[in-house]
Amino acid sequence: MSKYQHIKESAYAANMQLPKLGLVLFTFGNVSAADRELGVFAIKPSGVPYEDLSPEKMVIVDFDGNTIEGDLRPSSDTKTHAVLYKHWEHINGIVHTHSTYATSWAQSQRCIPIFGTTHADHLTTDVPCAPPMHDSMIEGDYEYQTGFQIMDCFKEQGLDYREVEMVLVGNHAPFTWGKTAEKAVYNSAVLEAVAQMAYLTEQINNNAPRLKDSLIKKHFMRKHGPDSYYGQ
Amino acid sequence: MSKYQHIKESAYAANMQLPKLGLVLFTFGNVSAADRELGVFAIKPSGVPYEDLSPEKMVIVDFDGNTIEGDLRPSSDTKTHAVLYKHWEHINGIVHTHSTYATSWAQSQRCIPIFGTTHADHLTTDVPCAPPMHDSMIEGDYEYQTGFQIMDCFKEQGLDYREVEMVLVGNHAPFTWGKTAEKAVYNSAVLEAVAQMAYLTEQINNNAPRLKDSLIKKHFMRKHGPDSYYGQ
Amino acid sequence: MSKYQHIKESAYAANMQLPKLGLVLFTFGNVSAADRELGVFAIKPSGVPYEDLSPEKMVIVDFDGNTIEGDLRPSSDTKTHAVLYKHWEHINGIVHTHSTYATSWAQSQRCIPIFGTTHADHLTTDVPCAPPMHDSMIEGDYEYQTGFQIMDCFKEQGLDYREVEMVLVGNHAPFTWGKTAEKAVYNSAVLEAVAQMAYLTEQINNNAPRLKDSLIKKHFMRKHGPDSYYGQ
Amino acid sequence: MSKYQHIKESAYAANMQLPKLGLVLFTFGNVSAADRELGVFAIKPSGVPYEDLSPEKMVIVDFDGNTIEGDLRPSSDTKTHAVLYKHWEHINGIVHTHSTYATSWAQSQRCIPIFGTTHADHLTTDVPCAPPMHDSMIEGDYEYQTGFQIMDCFKEQGLDYREVEMVLVGNHAPFTWGKTAEKAVYNSAVLEAVAQMAYLTEQINNNAPRLKDSLIKKHFMRKHGPDSYYGQ
Repeated sequence: MSKYQHIKESAYAANMQLPKLGLVLFTFGNVSAADRELGVFAIKPSGVPYEDLSPEKMVIVDFDGNTIEGDLRPSSDTKTHAVLYKHWEHINGIVHTHSTYATSWAQSQRCIPIFGTTHADHLTTDVPCAPPMHDSMIEGDYEYQTGFQIMDCFKEQGLDYREVEMVLVGNHAPFTWGKTAEKAVYNSAVLEAVAQMAYLTEQINNNAPRLKDSLIKKHFMRKHGPDSYYGQ
Repeated sequence: MSKYQHIKESAYAANMQLPKLGLVLFTFGNVSAADRELGVFAIKPSGVPYEDLSPEKMVIVDFDGNTIEGDLRPSSDTKTHAVLYKHWEHINGIVHTHSTYATSWAQSQRCIPIFGTTHADHLTTDVPCAPPMHDSMIEGDYEYQTGFQIMDCFKEQGLDYREVEMVLVGNHAPFTWGKTAEKAVYNSAVLEAVAQMAYLTEQINNNAPRLKDSLIKKHFMRKHGPDSYYGQ
Repeated sequence: MSKYQHIKESAYAANMQLPKLGLVLFTFGNVSAADRELGVFAIKPSGVPYEDLSPEKMVIVDFDGNTIEGDLRPSSDTKTHAVLYKHWEHINGIVHTHSTYATSWAQSQRCIPIFGTTHADHLTTDVPCAPPMHDSMIEGDYEYQTGFQIMDCFKEQGLDYREVEMVLVGNHAPFTWGKTAEKAVYNSAVLEAVAQMAYLTEQINNNAPRLKDSLIKKHFMRKHGPDSYYGQ
Repeated sequence: MSKYQHIKESAYAANMQLPKLGLVLFTFGNVSAADRELGVFAIKPSGVPYEDLSPEKMVIVDFDGNTIEGDLRPSSDTKTHAVLYKHWEHINGIVHTHSTYATSWAQSQRCIPIFGTTHADHLTTDVPCAPPMHDSMIEGDYEYQTGFQIMDCFKEQGLDYREVEMVLVGNHAPFTWGKTAEKAVYNSAVLEAVAQMAYLTEQINNNAPRLKDSLIKKHFMRKHGPDSYYGQ
């Protein structure tokens, strides 16, 4: 048995959640799961339908994007995953989807305003939207540069990837991450719900105000603060 | 067997209706069922996925918010339930969800206008939206204060909680209630349908008039008046 | 066995299609099936959940609205069905729902413009919307008057109920009908699809033109004309 | 066994994908599969519900629209399929649906702007919308002329049917095609997703810019170019 079996299982299980949660059409999405000690991650093979996946088909890749184990070609977004794992050392799972509402915000090139407590339960800022890349980045190593575009966006907006676990890439689609692949998938589903409700909120009231700071802080802290009292 | 077994069963069954009716994502919702004679209610434990619930996992809490029986921590919204049970003596079930359309209206900080008979079959007024709380309330005992915010809204708008069994908490999400937990869940689903159709109505005709009084009265009375002729 | 068994079976089967087609929440809808020779129709009992229905629970009512057979109270909309059967002698099935998009158009008090061939495949005019009733009609025999409100609308707009098998009742919801209960249910589903696409069409292009006459005629005739060539 | 069995099987399987993918209501859609050597295609019979289909019920038609084999009448859109097969020699599968979002764009008589990479992964231009036909074409051999209307639109917009495998027919609905019937169905589902997201994108930002050329080229080439690196 491969010494990577545990992350293959974990990546497989997380990938299979995407169609269940209604976040992907055909093969438009991928999840990876990393093992920091081994310095690699397991990721979905490119273009393989979810119903044909198995843990054995996951591809093992190192943080420079080199394939270490596996017969299939890894997801075409693999280098974006690799860059994020290499520079953001506290994450062990990454998800990319083209989910309907989050992708529509990305295409709109707008950050998702924080309108309510569903959003504040998960992050204290608007969901950031990275601008489309410069042509030089696109023509170069595109997926590699996508990773840097995301990190640049976080730097410019003064965000911490450990607190804000999601981003929209302008004109493209969302990426989410977390301490585990499972948590990254959870974040993708939360993002989609938040994106849909923000869209509806503006349709219902085009002057809807952002959530006020006291409520943002309260909701985030009760779920994530030192005295959090949500969950078991 | 616990002497609270009947409300545990009832709270469990009602909680399990939420995902079935499409009203919750993950654990974003909770239902409680009260026994007025025993002076307690059974409520969903915090952060436990619906598929892992059982009647035994329900937590028994008194109307001051003290846990009476149960190994798990009760829903983080427990104090809101407790306040409402304590002050509104004719309700025995309460539901809180972040359902898509109702939450979007709450985020919009608007009451839902009464546009049609689907709405009038259930209440004769707009669905009230309580304003966001003052910072002092938020920083204090937040969930406890949420209950008072709801009651204040009813006082200010001159509403009777026995006739209007639902409210939006501004920037947050809906609460519904009723004579039983089952009825409170029913009200949550009705609210979500009414919220979606009111949104669509305004999109189709942004001058859509509210329902006229004679129709409001007729529809409500045929379902709820002394000579009601709906149902068996 | 009841001599009405055949229409009970037919009304039961047609009612069970409503939740399957996503046209009803809880008990917000009803179907009836008539036998012209016997001068009666079978209709859903009021307020009974679909999962508890059976052919035996259908109620037999004559065209004046009198219950002829059955232990349960018939749908609260029964008199509307009776009036339509009495005056429109070529229909043998009627459906009433509060389906999401059709009801939103009814609440908007707008006819649904004929924007495309999906619509023209089924009727050559806008879907008519009857105005809300006068207070005197509402305070009188409401459901009975609803039937007349529908017929008045057809008279005023010069429509033939054999060609236009659907109507929106302003502020209320849709009614559809047909030569059989099954056809009436089919029309309800078509109306909901047409209502959703007309809503989207106006959102995408708020100057979208109505379908031109030559296309309206072509599509309707190829499905319904003397030389129709749709179907077997 | 019929010498056309292979395309009957293929057309049957592809037709059965339409309801599974949520692209059709009742019988509002059809798929055909061609064999170039035999000079024929297999197509869904007209008006037969999907649950009653079988490979044997598929109808064999030649590229002039003549029925070659089969007891049932072929789809009323058969001549449109025939014209496209006759003139576009590299396609072996065609799909026609009235899917919700694509049809709403067709009714709006607008091309679908290319807003993001989901779109660019499949085509490098807006999704073309052919204008409604002249009355003379409608009154003549309508379905035959629909084929020419589609080809004229491609000529006028300078499009290549091998690169752009989808079109909206104004006021009507979409057609898609591909090297196989399966690929044509895939294109129908992609079109519907792209249509929904383009609609939402404009709602969220009514000044949303089209995707820039460098990104269009990059995404299309990585999936379809000589050095493509998507898939296995």
